[in-house]
Amino acid sequence: SSLESSSQVEPGADKKSTGYETLMMTLEDGITKIVFNRPTKKNAINTKMYDEIMRALKAASKDDSSLTVLTGNGDYYSSGNDLTNFTDIPPGGVEEKAKNSAILLREFVDCFIDFPKPLIAAVNGPAVGISVTLLGLFDAVFASDRATFHTPFSHLGQTPEGCSSYTFPKIMGPAKATEMLVFGKKLTAREACTNGLVTEVFPDSTFQKEVWTRLKAFAKLPPNAMRISKEVMRNSEKEKLHAVNAEECSVLQGRWLSDECLNAVSNFLSRKARL
Amino acid sequence: SSLESSSQVEPGADKKSTGYETLMMTLEDGITKIVFNRPTKKNAINTKMYDEIMRALKAASKDDSSLTVLTGNGDYYSSGNDLTNFTDIPPGGVEEKAKNSAILLREFVDCFIDFPKPLIAAVNGPAVGISVTLLGLFDAVFASDRATFHTPFSHLGQTPEGCSSYTFPKIMGPAKATEMLVFGKKLTAREACTNGLVTEVFPDSTFQKEVWTRLKAFAKLPPNAMRISKEVMRNSEKEKLHAVNAEECSVLQGRWLSDECLNAVSNFLSRKARL
Amino acid sequence: SSLESSSQVEPGADKKSTGYETLMMTLEDGITKIVFNRPTKKNAINTKMYDEIMRALKAASKDDSSLTVLTGNGDYYSSGNDLTNFTDIPPGGVEEKAKNSAILLREFVDCFIDFPKPLIAAVNGPAVGISVTLLGLFDAVFASDRATFHTPFSHLGQTPEGCSSYTFPKIMGPAKATEMLVFGKKLTAREACTNGLVTEVFPDSTFQKEVWTRLKAFAKLPPNAMRISKEVMRNSEKEKLHAVNAEECSVLQGRWLSDECLNAVSNFLSRKARL
Repeated sequence: SSLESSSQVEPGADKKSTGYETLMMTLEDGITKIVFNRPTKKNAINTKMYDEIMRALKAASKDDSSLTVLTGNGDYYSSGNDLTNFTDIPPGGVEEKAKNSAILLREFVDCFIDFPKPLIAAVNGPAVGISVTLLGLFDAVFASDRATFHTPFSHLGQTPEGCSSYTFPKIMGPAKATEMLVFGKKLTAREACTNGLVTEVFPDSTFQKEVWTRLKAFAKLPPNAMRISKEVMRNSEKEKLHAVNAEECSVLQGRWLSDECLNAVSNFLSRKARL
Repeated sequence: SSLESSSQVEPGADKKSTGYETLMMTLEDGITKIVFNRPTKKNAINTKMYDEIMRALKAASKDDSSLTVLTGNGDYYSSGNDLTNFTDIPPGGVEEKAKNSAILLREFVDCFIDFPKPLIAAVNGPAVGISVTLLGLFDAVFASDRATFHTPFSHLGQTPEGCSSYTFPKIMGPAKATEMLVFGKKLTAREACTNGLVTEVFPDSTFQKEVWTRLKAFAKLPPNAMRISKEVMRNSEKEKLHAVNAEECSVLQGRWLSDECLNAVSNFLSRKARL
Repeated sequence: SSLESSSQVEPGADKKSTGYETLMMTLEDGITKIVFNRPTKKNAINTKMYDEIMRALKAASKDDSSLTVLTGNGDYYSSGNDLTNFTDIPPGGVEEKAKNSAILLREFVDCFIDFPKPLIAAVNGPAVGISVTLLGLFDAVFASDRATFHTPFSHLGQTPEGCSSYTFPKIMGPAKATEMLVFGKKLTAREACTNGLVTEVFPDSTFQKEVWTRLKAFAKLPPNAMRISKEVMRNSEKEKLHAVNAEECSVLQGRWLSDECLNAVSNFLSRKARL
């Protein structure tokens, strides 16, 4: 089907990109909207979705939009890395799996570091793991009061990614960053806003309306001024962010082969299988 | 008149510096007070005032005061860059104007980066543009609850200055900094305090009394300890701040010649002329 | 007595380290607890205690614990540097005293910068001076609502240490950091939490219970994941922190010989003697 071809566009559907299995993507009113679209999987990010998000960001960076918005379809924003990714072991074994995963993760996060236009998250519901950590690389984060922010890395024997080991302490200080990234505290939207991770919180009942009213107003501002403002704000730490990303991925590659991680993920998957 | 001579001092007026057209400057109780004094223009900063603020800061850095305070006369703290600056085009045309403005701006902001004593803003009313962005280079910011903080750069086709592209994300995180610097959100004093830009907010009715009570108490502390504490806190990022300032000014020089900016400023000035 | 020998352990007391005069140290439930134990001196840190804290941290870094917790015995967390340290002048005079103190301080703060496991403060009561500034190097800070945070450096003719000249502006922005470090504002636990210095505040009546419930839960998480997470979060600024520490100590060495400092400390000690 056309969903499996990578860039076919239906005649007359110039505002909607097809060719994505795990995403919906539209361009309207100067805004490119990328929607995580695996609602029955709580928008967990599997390998396919990592690839498609990268492809979508690359397309958005070159299209006519002024702003790019990421959001989730259904109850969740995103439940983070799909842990079934861990079960798909290649012929080279777990070492090769860990190496490939680290390469993919690094490339994925680099796309967010380098994204040239204002990048906005509309966090419609719970966010977990990498969907939380990446928010430190966004330019604005609007959250429903139904959203939560949870990074249980230690619980899974893992360590922070998405540059959060650098961005979170910078945004909220180490005392709050450690609570999230090391001790796995789940934050409410209000707490995440107080900590500086979230720009503004809205009641869930008016979330979509209020966010899109704001976004449409922003999209009418001079696009070059916005793009260049972001560039000036971000450029001075881009090199640092790429180095942090490389280091985080290298550390995680080791973690994924550790007993702590293998046991924790295996327990998680068997608990899930029993449900 | 004596206002136009640059350093004459009236006999017996040793506490009050004359020689400023756009400022008032006094030294009392160990505190040098520099007052933006174009109240009928909402203390907009024209070329003369840029020059005089630099001169006043250089004088304050060498005088006997322990602390230097900036504040505004009248309803406004400062409405920022006087946009009529844009209408005064030299023989070399807009390119020369943009170049000269970038040089002036860079030199102006450098004075704040290098100011050696604790520098305090008493924000008595609305602050706009560069009068807001510079606050990231101050050591303390006291605000009336009548103050607002507004940086509508994108609206004018422009980009952040005053090192705010660096200081604002550092102070409040990118999610809040972008809201101000890219999307032009106007903050209340309370919001600016929550974001870390403002030290403390006071009811307007007691603002002057409470702020000056505090300032006079601070001015009795050992002056070298305060000056050296500031030095230790600021020195490690001074080089970075100068680089950021240079980059911001260079980017703005390009912006001032862009259609986005020229159209936006021209619209602003003609709306203003119609009022 | 056994208190003066450095590492003797009583038979059957394998969880409790003896050999400390100014501290209590235990290892239980995977948590090493280091308790400031000069309650009649408000846990002021004298030279002996500086040495013992370093020794305790070195032991904790190598023991079987996952987490290390610092707290105070009695009403205070710690009243900071014991100012009677200033009265113990060696044969080489005040210059030698200042030099030795700077060397000790630098070595002491380096132990906190380099501590490899999650380091948590349980701030049971008022904290003053270096016991406050060091909190910027902790990974989590839990505070009783009876705790206060006070750094009256300028009042004593001194300047910030413990890397606070770098960590405090990073955590809370210069407007709030200067208020504490230069103007000596005493913060409530709630204010310190809003500023990002404190992770969470608890009512004093339930402080111990709630904090230790949390800590025991954290201590069950995979220890390597926690240790490596901290490493990733801290490593990228470790070099910077050591440089800041060296600079702060060098500046303080000069301060300790200044009239401002000698007069202020002498006044403090004579006021205290009169009480």
